[in-house]
Amino acid sequence: MAENRDVLITEMIMRLIEGKKYASVRDAMETMHAADIAAILEECPKEQVPLIFRLLPKELAAETFAQMEEDHQELLIQSFSDSELKEVVDELYVDDAADLVGEMPANVVKRILRQADPEKRKLINEILKYPEDSAGSIMTTEYVSLRPDMTVEDAIKRIRRTGVDKETINTCYVTKQNRKLLGIVTIRTLLLAEENATMQELMTEDVISALTTQDREEVALDFTKYDLSAMPVVDEENRLVGIVTVDDVMDVLQEETTEDIEKMAAIIPLDKPYLKTAAFKMFLSRVPWLLIMMLSATFTGLIITHYETALAANIVLVASIPMLMSTGGNAGSQSSVTVIRGLSIGEIEFPDILRVMWKEIRVAILCGLTLAVVSYFKFILFDGVGWDVALVISLTLFVTVAVAKIVGCTLPMIADKIGFDPAVMASPFITTIIDAVSLAIYVNIAMNLLL
Amino acid sequence: MAENRDVLITEMIMRLIEGKKYASVRDAMETMHAADIAAILEECPKEQVPLIFRLLPKELAAETFAQMEEDHQELLIQSFSDSELKEVVDELYVDDAADLVGEMPANVVKRILRQADPEKRKLINEILKYPEDSAGSIMTTEYVSLRPDMTVEDAIKRIRRTGVDKETINTCYVTKQNRKLLGIVTIRTLLLAEENATMQELMTEDVISALTTQDREEVALDFTKYDLSAMPVVDEENRLVGIVTVDDVMDVLQEETTEDIEKMAAIIPLDKPYLKTAAFKMFLSRVPWLLIMMLSATFTGLIITHYETALAANIVLVASIPMLMSTGGNAGSQSSVTVIRGLSIGEIEFPDILRVMWKEIRVAILCGLTLAVVSYFKFILFDGVGWDVALVISLTLFVTVAVAKIVGCTLPMIADKIGFDPAVMASPFITTIIDAVSLAIYVNIAMNLLL
Repeated sequence: MAENRDVLITEMIMRLIEGKKYASVRDAMETMHAADIAAILEECPKEQVPLIFRLLPKELAAETFAQMEEDHQELLIQSFSDSELKEVVDELYVDDAADLVGEMPANVVKRILRQADPEKRKLINEILKYPEDSAGSIMTTEYVSLRPDMTVEDAIKRIRRTGVDKETINTCYVTKQNRKLLGIVTIRTLLLAEENATMQELMTEDVISALTTQDREEVALDFTKYDLSAMPVVDEENRLVGIVTVDDVMDVLQEETTEDIEKMAAIIPLDKPYLKTAAFKMFLSRVPWLLIMMLSATFTGLIITHYETALAANIVLVASIPMLMSTGGNAGSQSSVTVIRGLSIGEIEFPDILRVMWKEIRVAILCGLTLAVVSYFKFILFDGVGWDVALVISLTLFVTVAVAKIVGCTLPMIADKIGFDPAVMASPFITTIIDAVSLAIYVNIAMNLLL
Repeated sequence: MAENRDVLITEMIMRLIEGKKYASVRDAMETMHAADIAAILEECPKEQVPLIFRLLPKELAAETFAQMEEDHQELLIQSFSDSELKEVVDELYVDDAADLVGEMPANVVKRILRQADPEKRKLINEILKYPEDSAGSIMTTEYVSLRPDMTVEDAIKRIRRTGVDKETINTCYVTKQNRKLLGIVTIRTLLLAEENATMQELMTEDVISALTTQDREEVALDFTKYDLSAMPVVDEENRLVGIVTVDDVMDVLQEETTEDIEKMAAIIPLDKPYLKTAAFKMFLSRVPWLLIMMLSATFTGLIITHYETALAANIVLVASIPMLMSTGGNAGSQSSVTVIRGLSIGEIEFPDILRVMWKEIRVAILCGLTLAVVSYFKFILFDGVGWDVALVISLTLFVTVAVAKIVGCTLPMIADKIGFDPAVMASPFITTIIDAVSLAIYVNIAMNLLL
C-alpha cells in the first residue's frame, strides 16, 4: 500500500517537473512529511534531486536532508553553493549535523565545517569525539537548562526565549553554574505548578542518566525499562553534556537488532539498507562465514570416511545422517537464538546460567524423547527397518538433541561473559560443533550395538 | 552489574523486613523507580510481596503494579481488600488497566471491574473490544483535547485543569464537537505562541494517525519513520478515540522482533520472558517444528537409499553430504533472514522482488564460485581426491548455493504477498527444501560424470 502510494506520488512529482510546474511541486511537497519527501527523492533520477530539493522551504529542506541516505546527501552537498550549504547546516539539529559529518568524505566534511557557525562547529566536534556506539555519539547538545533558584515564571520565560532551537522542551534540566546536573523538571510539572514555585522544589532529583562513554544499546534498554522519552548524558563528574531523545533510541534499537539478526545468520553486518548495498559488498559480508563453516565441515567428512565399515553395515545408517544433523542443528539453534535474544534485551544475564541450563536440560529431554520415540516407530512401521538399526538412530537422535540444546544455551552465555559477541556464537557456528559431536556419537553407538 | 546491584538491594530490603524496619523499607523504596521496585518484588519470596507492596505510597504503588509480571499481579490482587484494589485501579492509566483486565482470569477481572468507577470501566471495555495486535488495543483514552476556537490562554488553562490525569500533555489534539480530529498542537507551539492566537491558527492539520483496527506493528514502524512521540488513533469516520504513546510502541517493537526471531528459529512464539516460562511450555513451543522438520528429512534419506549405487562409487561422495547440506542451509538462511528482516522493518516490499532476486543471483554466483573453487583445490591438494570426484562435489556446491539463495530470498517475499508470515518461511523450513533439491542435484551430477 504505502509503497504504491509513494510510487504514484513520485510519478506525479516527476510529471509536474517535466511540465515545469514548479510552484505546484512546491505546494504538493509542503503538505508532506520530511520522511516521505526523502523517500520520493531517493526514487527520483539523480540529476533531478537538487532541482526538486531547492523547491522546498528552508526548514522542511533541512528536515528532509536529515532523513536522506548518505549517498544522496553527498550528491546534494556537491551541488550546493556555499550559501545554500550554510542554510541547510544552520537548520540542522546538532546531532543530525554530527551524523552527517561522521559519514561524509574528508573534502565534503571540510566544506560543511567551514559553513557552520563557530558555536555549532564546536558542538559538532564535541559529539564527534565520542566513540561510535557510545551515548555521546547519539546525543544532542541542544536542551533547555534551568537553574535551581528559578521560579516557574522565570523558567517559562526562559523556555519561550530559547526553546525554538532545542530538540525537546518536554523535559528541562536543572543544573548548577558548573553544569552539574541536579535534577529534571518536565514541562507538565511546570504547567501544573504555582507560578512562584522554584525549580529546587519541583525537580525530580533521582534521574536516570547515561555516561558519555556508555554503550548506546545499554542506554536504549534503559529507555524501554523506565519508559523514558529523553535521558541526560553526563560526564564522569556528573556534568550535563547533552541529552539523548527517544527517536534516536528507536533507530539504535532497530540497527542493533538487525545487526544481531545478521550475525545469527552468519552475516557480517552491513551499515546500509538492503536495496542500497552493492552485490559485491553483500558477497564480502556473506562469504567469510560460509567458507569457515564449509571448511569446518571437513571434520564430519573425516568421521564418515574413517568409520566407513561401521556405517556400511546398513544403508539406512548413511541415509539418516542428514536427518540427524539437521535435527541437531535445529534443536541447537532454537536454544541459542532464544538465549541470545534474552541476553540482548536484558531478560537473561550471566548469573542465570545454571537456571538456564537446568531449564534447557529438561526441555532437551522432553524434545529428545518425543523425537526418538516418533522416529523409532516410523522406522519400524513405515520404513521396514530392523529394530536394532532403528534403536541406534533413535538413541543418537536423543543424545544429539540433548547435546545440541546444552551447547546451544551455554556457548552464547559464556561468550557474553568473556566479552565476545553472543550473536556470533549462534546457529551456524554451534551447528558445526553439534554436527561433529553427534556424528561421533552415532558411529560409536552403531559400532557398540550393531557390530 | 545491574543484576548484582539488584540482588544486593533485594537482600538489603529482605533484611530490613526481617528486622521489622518498615519505615526504612518505605524510605528506601521511595527513592527508587517503579521498574526497579517491580524487579525486586519479582525476586522476593511470594508471601512477602503483599507486605512490601503495602509500604509503597499510593502513586508509586500503582506504577510499580503496572510494571509487574501478571503472575505477581494476580497474587497481589488476591491479597488486596476491595478498598486497596480500588486505590490501585484508580491510579492506573486506562491502557495499563485494560492490559491487566485482558490478562487476568475471569473471577479476578470481575473484582477489578467492580472496583473501577463507571467512567473508567467504560474506557477499559472500550479498549478491550479492539482485536489483539491492533492500534486500538495499545492506545490510551486519556489525552488532552482542545477546540479550534480556543486561544492559547484557554488551552493552557484547560491543560492545567485536566492535565494531571492525562498520559501525555506534550501533544494536544484539536477536535470538533463530534470528536472529528482537526489537527494537533504541541505544548512547545503553545508555549512559544502569542496568548491570543487560536488553535485553528496554530495547529498542524496534516497529522499522521492510525486506524483503531490497524496492525500495531505498522503503527510502530510509522513512529520510527516519522520520529513521533505520540500518535492519534481514529475510527473510520476520523473521530479521535485515543492516542498511542512511544513507550508502548517500544514494547511492541521489542515483542514483535522477538516473535520474528523465534519464528525464524522454528519456535512457536511464547508470550512470557524466558526465565518465567515453564520447561514443559517451552517443550510444546519447540517440538512441533522439530518433528515436522525431522519427518520431512525423510526425503533426503529416500534419495540416498535410492541412489545407493551412484554414491557407493566413492566414500568421499557420501562423506561430503553433510558439508553440502550445511553449506546450502547456511547460504539459504543468509538470504532468507536478510529479506525477512528487510520486510519487517519496511526496507523491502513486494514490488522490489525482481531487484531482490537480481541482487541475490549475483551474490549467489560470487559466493558459489568462491566456495566451489576453494573446495575443489582443497579436495585435490589436501584430501587426495580424484579430479572427477572433486569436480562433482564442487559443481554441486555451486548449484546448491545458487538454488539456496534464490529460494531463500523468494519464498519469504511470496509468503508476505499472499498473507503468510514470512518469518515462518525462514531458515529451517527453507533448509528442508534446499536439502532435498541439492541432494537430487548431487546424485544426478554424480551419475552423469562418474558412471
